[in-house]
Amino acid sequence: MNNNGVLVVVSAPSGCGKDTIIAEVLKKTDDAFVSVSMTTRAMRPGEKEGVNYYFVSQTEFEEKIDQGEMLEYARYGSNYYGTPAGPVRKLLSEGKTVILIIEVQGAGNVKRLFPDACAIFIIPPSFEILEKRLRGRGTDDNDSIIKRLEIAKDELARAVEFDYIVENDVLEEAVEDIITIIKAEKLKTNKMKNKLSEVINNA
Amino acid sequence: MNNNGVLVVVSAPSGCGKDTIIAEVLKKTDDAFVSVSMTTRAMRPGEKEGVNYYFVSQTEFEEKIDQGEMLEYARYGSNYYGTPAGPVRKLLSEGKTVILIIEVQGAGNVKRLFPDACAIFIIPPSFEILEKRLRGRGTDDNDSIIKRLEIAKDELARAVEFDYIVENDVLEEAVEDIITIIKAEKLKTNKMKNKLSEVINNA
Repeated sequence: MNNNGVLVVVSAPSGCGKDTIIAEVLKKTDDAFVSVSMTTRAMRPGEKEGVNYYFVSQTEFEEKIDQGEMLEYARYGSNYYGTPAGPVRKLLSEGKTVILIIEVQGAGNVKRLFPDACAIFIIPPSFEILEKRLRGRGTDDNDSIIKRLEIAKDELARAVEFDYIVENDVLEEAVEDIITIIKAEKLKTNKMKNKLSEVINNA
Repeated sequence: MNNNGVLVVVSAPSGCGKDTIIAEVLKKTDDAFVSVSMTTRAMRPGEKEGVNYYFVSQTEFEEKIDQGEMLEYARYGSNYYGTPAGPVRKLLSEGKTVILIIEVQGAGNVKRLFPDACAIFIIPPSFEILEKRLRGRGTDDNDSIIKRLEIAKDELARAVEFDYIVENDVLEEAVEDIITIIKAEKLKTNKMKNKLSEVINNA
């Protein structure tokens, strides 16, 4: 079995630019994938199984929860949404890099199932800039922004539970930092064990 | 106190090219230093205190050993040679990257004094190539080469005690790998705590 696959967990408070950063990372790397979520909601026109979501029944979803096979999940209205461990495990066994963009409190659960996962927390250059970015979007009213900032404050306090912290000041630099972390993770002793064994066994 | 300094321990069997790799790494980075050794032997013409070695008396050296302040040391004839922890600690507190090139069995001791140290083990692409490289040097007779290869075999088995493994197949790639690891180490949560506190304290 190939054990070179790297599982990267990325979390950040709202407004820190995690989706933009990861979209750029994916453009610049050829073996990285963002995990596909699973849902119990109906497939919409144009959606594809295994691309937009894995579409399953409520019974199937609840079975996965019971088996501890959901890396994280939430219920919105009558539908479940979550990240199944199976496809992640498959990509890792193929040596791929899998990126999970998840809520701050979900990272611990991923580490429980995948102890080798590397967890990255993205922070803003300052709280002031985070507030400016949130206001600049023009999508939220003042009350929601104040609420988002309160949540961000709580989430920032949990950054110490992560392995790496990347500051999103200049987008290109944050993207390079994530790519650097992924490259370094591939050189971790655990990931290099096959290569090492190869050298030792032919000695 | 600045806690951004990165301590990198580099070990490898003889013939794996660690000195060449580190010389290149130093050329390509501006905040990295190789630690200076301490010795009890007399200063030779042209040598400079703190550049070639720290020159001390036998009593001073033995005091450092007793204080657990030598990261590693050995005695050749009547003289001691070793790596003192003090200068390493000072460079780290200034945010510098300190590279220690040490014997395979010395890495554990460094980790005891500096738990955040990152230990890199350099391996050859194959044992066959290691043998070719050792013979190609033309500096050792057959017996010494066989002995070196025996030692290399034992040392390779200890690679799993290190944090990272870098293969020295193409020199430039091995150099880039080490630089990547150092960059990633600087993004570790422990090293980013000052920045994180800054953001949190102004929230």
